[in-house]
Amino acid sequence: MSKYWTQLVTQLDPYVPGEQPQDQQYTKLNTNENPYPPSPRVIDAINDYDKQNLKLYPDPESSELKKTLAAYFSLKTNNVFLGNGSDEVLAHSFQAFFKQSEPLLFPDISYSFYTAYCGLYQIDFKQIPLDQNFNIQPIDYEVKHGGIILPNPNAPTGTALSLNHIRDIVTNSSSVVIIDEAYIDFGGESATNLIKDFDNLLVIQTFSKARSMAGLRLGYALGHHDLIDALNRIKNSFNSYPIDSLAQTAAIASINDEDYFQHNRQLIVQTRESLTDELTDLGFEVLPSTANFVFVRHKSTAAQELYQQLKQQGILVRYFDKPRINNYLRITIGTKSECQHLVKVLADIL
Amino acid sequence: MSKYWTQLVTQLDPYVPGEQPQDQQYTKLNTNENPYPPSPRVIDAINDYDKQNLKLYPDPESSELKKTLAAYFSLKTNNVFLGNGSDEVLAHSFQAFFKQSEPLLFPDISYSFYTAYCGLYQIDFKQIPLDQNFNIQPIDYEVKHGGIILPNPNAPTGTALSLNHIRDIVTNSSSVVIIDEAYIDFGGESATNLIKDFDNLLVIQTFSKARSMAGLRLGYALGHHDLIDALNRIKNSFNSYPIDSLAQTAAIASINDEDYFQHNRQLIVQTRESLTDELTDLGFEVLPSTANFVFVRHKSTAAQELYQQLKQQGILVRYFDKPRINNYLRITIGTKSECQHLVKVLADIL
Repeated sequence: MSKYWTQLVTQLDPYVPGEQPQDQQYTKLNTNENPYPPSPRVIDAINDYDKQNLKLYPDPESSELKKTLAAYFSLKTNNVFLGNGSDEVLAHSFQAFFKQSEPLLFPDISYSFYTAYCGLYQIDFKQIPLDQNFNIQPIDYEVKHGGIILPNPNAPTGTALSLNHIRDIVTNSSSVVIIDEAYIDFGGESATNLIKDFDNLLVIQTFSKARSMAGLRLGYALGHHDLIDALNRIKNSFNSYPIDSLAQTAAIASINDEDYFQHNRQLIVQTRESLTDELTDLGFEVLPSTANFVFVRHKSTAAQELYQQLKQQGILVRYFDKPRINNYLRITIGTKSECQHLVKVLADIL
Repeated sequence: MSKYWTQLVTQLDPYVPGEQPQDQQYTKLNTNENPYPPSPRVIDAINDYDKQNLKLYPDPESSELKKTLAAYFSLKTNNVFLGNGSDEVLAHSFQAFFKQSEPLLFPDISYSFYTAYCGLYQIDFKQIPLDQNFNIQPIDYEVKHGGIILPNPNAPTGTALSLNHIRDIVTNSSSVVIIDEAYIDFGGESATNLIKDFDNLLVIQTFSKARSMAGLRLGYALGHHDLIDALNRIKNSFNSYPIDSLAQTAAIASINDEDYFQHNRQLIVQTRESLTDELTDLGFEVLPSTANFVFVRHKSTAAQELYQQLKQQGILVRYFDKPRINNYLRITIGTKSECQHLVKVLADIL
């Protein structure tokens, strides 16, 4: 606190990311990273890049990468916006669309950064409770609003909304609806297929999860060109060159290796299914997940205690000390051997 | 324009960066990039980095890089803030400090992104005219204000303010004063030496210019820990992981190669001095520059015409169609041979 801060700064309630210990001593199942490396083509692209050229600014428009993504999604380049991680894309989107006279709607249990963005841009919001099974009920969003944002699958629950439900929500809204698809590649139905039908739908995805590129910071939004235009206006009032040259090169290589992407995400899905079975056998209730994590509670042992005991045993999972979910753990899907290790340690604890 | 935009988006007047042709056909003397590559140690660090680890998020605090910068400037890590290019650091700083009841002050001829940030955060500002020689007069800043930002050396003029003048301005202000030192390494006196004396001084620097790393996007702010704390609060409400893993590694390697840095910047300074002499011989008035560019006008030929003729000849320089400076060209200092080529082409045109 200082007399030099703007009033806004004093009011902020910043997001707290999951623990990121830098000593690599932990089995990290707490921040939904992919346990497998990026495509070998991504690594080759970075190694082959002429690093003398890092003296030059990157292409401010990321034109080649936009072209690659547009072709991949059968869209045009003016339907694509790029940012320094999907968190940056989300931030710009909140500023571009959600400061309205009516409140922004999102689930009470959801990505906790949303409330931080609302603080940053002083956006009025209303949290809509998930139903008792932690599902989103589309009818609950038929109230006055200035925008809607839904993670699909939701985080930290992992549960998905069907494409039909999303279509209903977008149809019934006269505001911008953002579907935050950070985890879509692990089994959900992507709303990218609806983009051509709506001028108020924005879909946000990331290279951090299914493409194993969290360390490079790349996210994107897909939507009607007028929505993308708004994001470009914000971006060019904030930072003309958000995506560095190596990240642009690497991302193109990732999109161009579809086989690796499919193999990688299917491996996670398979591991999630076997982990779900094993955790169920240990007495956990596991929410149906289409993400690269599971959201679980044990029939008799408190989540906070399990979190602490796992940490002592060198395994990090995510615990949220928040209403409704303070007896749940969010466990990232690791490699098969990491998940087996987790199950063994949990069996010992229990 | 779309009914879905917030009022803010419709009002924005985004920054327009210098042309960035992607075909590499031009001699690029228009965006103040360094003509020399990054240190070989930077390139080695990127090549040696284990790219399998790009699956993991970067250290959100960039702790090692902060330690390295703190040691380099004889400060503490809580005096250092990092961003995705100094443009991002500037953006967060405007939001953290400059939305006040009194206007922000900056020169009428200055980095044109400042007005874009004011638009983005709806900050009231007042532009203080440079004197007739394009110098900043400290006494002109002794008017009511809610903040001051000064590039030193100024852009696009290249002229510098002495450390004594900066000390006077910071002493006489009861608001935050930001010294934007993107070009400080080419001959100016850095205000980093004043940081320990003031709680209202923030100095912003970049890896893009003297360190030849524009393609990697890295900037930083140095100042009192309360000011840094405000920036962290903004950053953690915007994007927890702004600096990718390769950029963190590369930046540490750059700071650790002081010899290369000194050699690189001195080469630019030497080239600037000889280019200044040659342009003077061709009939140009060259403003005294302590930056990696010169700001020039010709005694008889209009700047806009020279800009166009140079472009036809494959040389890009920067022309600003703005009051007071619309007869000037800003020319980035290239390699010795690029500058010789420029002089030859200009001689032919004239």
